[in-house]
Amino acid sequence: EMSTGIASSLQLLSSSFSFPLSTYTSQATMKNIASKLRLLFLYLIACEAYSTRPIHSVVVVGGTHGNEYTGVWCIKQLEANPGETEKYDSLNIKTLLANPEAFMANRRFIHDDLNRQFSAAKLSIDPDGTHEAERARQLDELLGPKLGEPKTDLVIDLHTTTSNMGITLIVPETDVVMTQAAAYVLEKCENAFGDRAQILMHPLPDRHARPNLGSTAMHGLTIEVGPVPQGVLRHDAVEKTQHAMHCLLEFLDRRNKGEDVLGELKRKYPDNVVPCYRSAQAKKPGEMSGKISWPSADHNPNFPSVLIHKSIQDKDFQIIKRGDPLFVNLDGSLIRYDGSHGDEVHLIFVNEGGYYFEQSGTGIGVA
Amino acid sequence: EMSTGIASSLQLLSSSFSFPLSTYTSQATMKNIASKLRLLFLYLIACEAYSTRPIHSVVVVGGTHGNEYTGVWCIKQLEANPGETEKYDSLNIKTLLANPEAFMANRRFIHDDLNRQFSAAKLSIDPDGTHEAERARQLDELLGPKLGEPKTDLVIDLHTTTSNMGITLIVPETDVVMTQAAAYVLEKCENAFGDRAQILMHPLPDRHARPNLGSTAMHGLTIEVGPVPQGVLRHDAVEKTQHAMHCLLEFLDRRNKGEDVLGELKRKYPDNVVPCYRSAQAKKPGEMSGKISWPSADHNPNFPSVLIHKSIQDKDFQIIKRGDPLFVNLDGSLIRYDGSHGDEVHLIFVNEGGYYFEQSGTGIGVA
Repeated sequence: EMSTGIASSLQLLSSSFSFPLSTYTSQATMKNIASKLRLLFLYLIACEAYSTRPIHSVVVVGGTHGNEYTGVWCIKQLEANPGETEKYDSLNIKTLLANPEAFMANRRFIHDDLNRQFSAAKLSIDPDGTHEAERARQLDELLGPKLGEPKTDLVIDLHTTTSNMGITLIVPETDVVMTQAAAYVLEKCENAFGDRAQILMHPLPDRHARPNLGSTAMHGLTIEVGPVPQGVLRHDAVEKTQHAMHCLLEFLDRRNKGEDVLGELKRKYPDNVVPCYRSAQAKKPGEMSGKISWPSADHNPNFPSVLIHKSIQDKDFQIIKRGDPLFVNLDGSLIRYDGSHGDEVHLIFVNEGGYYFEQSGTGIGVA
Repeated sequence: EMSTGIASSLQLLSSSFSFPLSTYTSQATMKNIASKLRLLFLYLIACEAYSTRPIHSVVVVGGTHGNEYTGVWCIKQLEANPGETEKYDSLNIKTLLANPEAFMANRRFIHDDLNRQFSAAKLSIDPDGTHEAERARQLDELLGPKLGEPKTDLVIDLHTTTSNMGITLIVPETDVVMTQAAAYVLEKCENAFGDRAQILMHPLPDRHARPNLGSTAMHGLTIEVGPVPQGVLRHDAVEKTQHAMHCLLEFLDRRNKGEDVLGELKRKYPDNVVPCYRSAQAKKPGEMSGKISWPSADHNPNFPSVLIHKSIQDKDFQIIKRGDPLFVNLDGSLIRYDGSHGDEVHLIFVNEGGYYFEQSGTGIGVA
């Protein structure tokens, strides 16, 4: 549902902001672009008034998932080397280890996924007694509050995935500044590390509805790097994460100082559009976005009763078509993709270790 | 210490068995072979009397480490498809989930590394109150006992590693039948999957001294496949593990039936030697074998305070020389290999996630 995706994306965005829709008004034209490039396009330049507001207070967060060690290393590295952040003198940069207890236990979480606790609805009800529900309230007080004027302009949340996602910059739908920032970082990362960088937009336009930690702040951007095993530090993944983070800080600092970073972006993206994937809407509890879920073993809800077929392993951001092999049963028989998310969809987070937990929503992501 | 390795290996072996040392008696010749091929050689044919004793009762074990899901999948697959084992009609094959509690928790272990609990010394003292010490006693009763006549002829223990170990067949030093079996499997795996298969010999000639689960049985062989993240199932890793396991069962079944599998091996390895790595001797508690250990963070013994340098990441079974980059500090400075295990050594288990736990012995393996 590529073309529908574009249409609804533009509609959602245009309900909040005014866009220079210019040449791309007809559904037919958009369909044509989508089928040609197999990407969604996101307009770069939107409401200028909103997008010129400065961003000063930044919190770099690691260990939102306690066994994603890369982010923890990166914040420790910043803490040990104050010069690394002081050079961005228009920014006030702090670091935060989001879930120290889960980090010490080398686990994704103690009871529940911390990165699913921050919707206004969930923060408004009595906590459910889990460690992460309690911790979310502390963090909302520290970084937010979500229901009020947040103390933090931007949370940069550092994640890793066991899937082959390269460097993925996850931005919320309708956040124009983060989209611009991601466009800036994307181009720099592609130059530094080749073509394995992309922007992924989560379709949750209302900040209050977003469940992720970064949504407590005015802006949130997630840097997701993979493949990295859980509970393991890889030098190359650390370098990619650091590079993306520094490019982002550089963009914000230059923007605060009135440099024409938008003008630079317009020259780099002459059509004023930036390639961007848009994840499917969440359907089930625990999901950040829509997934092709898998059946789990009777006795263990966190152990799949199928294998992800080897033909799609490591094939993140590639297309699966209705009828293609998807899963393998214990008896060796195939389960094929049934087109439930559209005849052709992009797979994302293929075999992400965190998505083996029902608390995080089991399955393969779709864009 | 390649040549010393060969010498001591031969001495150890020849103290238990008689060998056709024939052409390779001089230290000078052995040094020459080692420096040329950068491998240890293990003699294929030893004490024929010992090696013709049949092997009937086989237990295939998964989940010795609860988050190594590949082995768990493989035993479930065998349980769901009885024909897969029934075809080896000279063998009585059972399956065992070694640490169900750790598996349910998606953790390597609950309190301590189960695969370090089975030395006769440790089994003889009062259990230390950990879940794994208790479980080890149950398993020793079920499979062994170690101090007595074991009920089980062979344990095949299915493991994975986050390091780039390909298909590695781990055999104990002095076990001639397992060495022959590994030689048979090695050749079949190389044909099926390319050149990423190797034999690794652990230098613990005395079965009573071995700490691993498989040592409760008369024979033990570990199939180790990587890279696979912890808590993740990969179709390709499952296939490699299954292939190696079936080749091993085929070897044993054919051998029991009096087929001339040794003759076949002699034709495949015309010099009667099989390439084999020999891991360094264990030095510290928790180690199965010698390691280059890394410093850990003050507040978290399971979080390294250094990164493994990217130049050796994924370079398992390759050489590191004194002075080569080894680790990176938080300030970006390098720690170079100091030659502590010899001027030139092979690295194994490079960045294995399980070795982030002090209970399992932190560090990089050496052969």
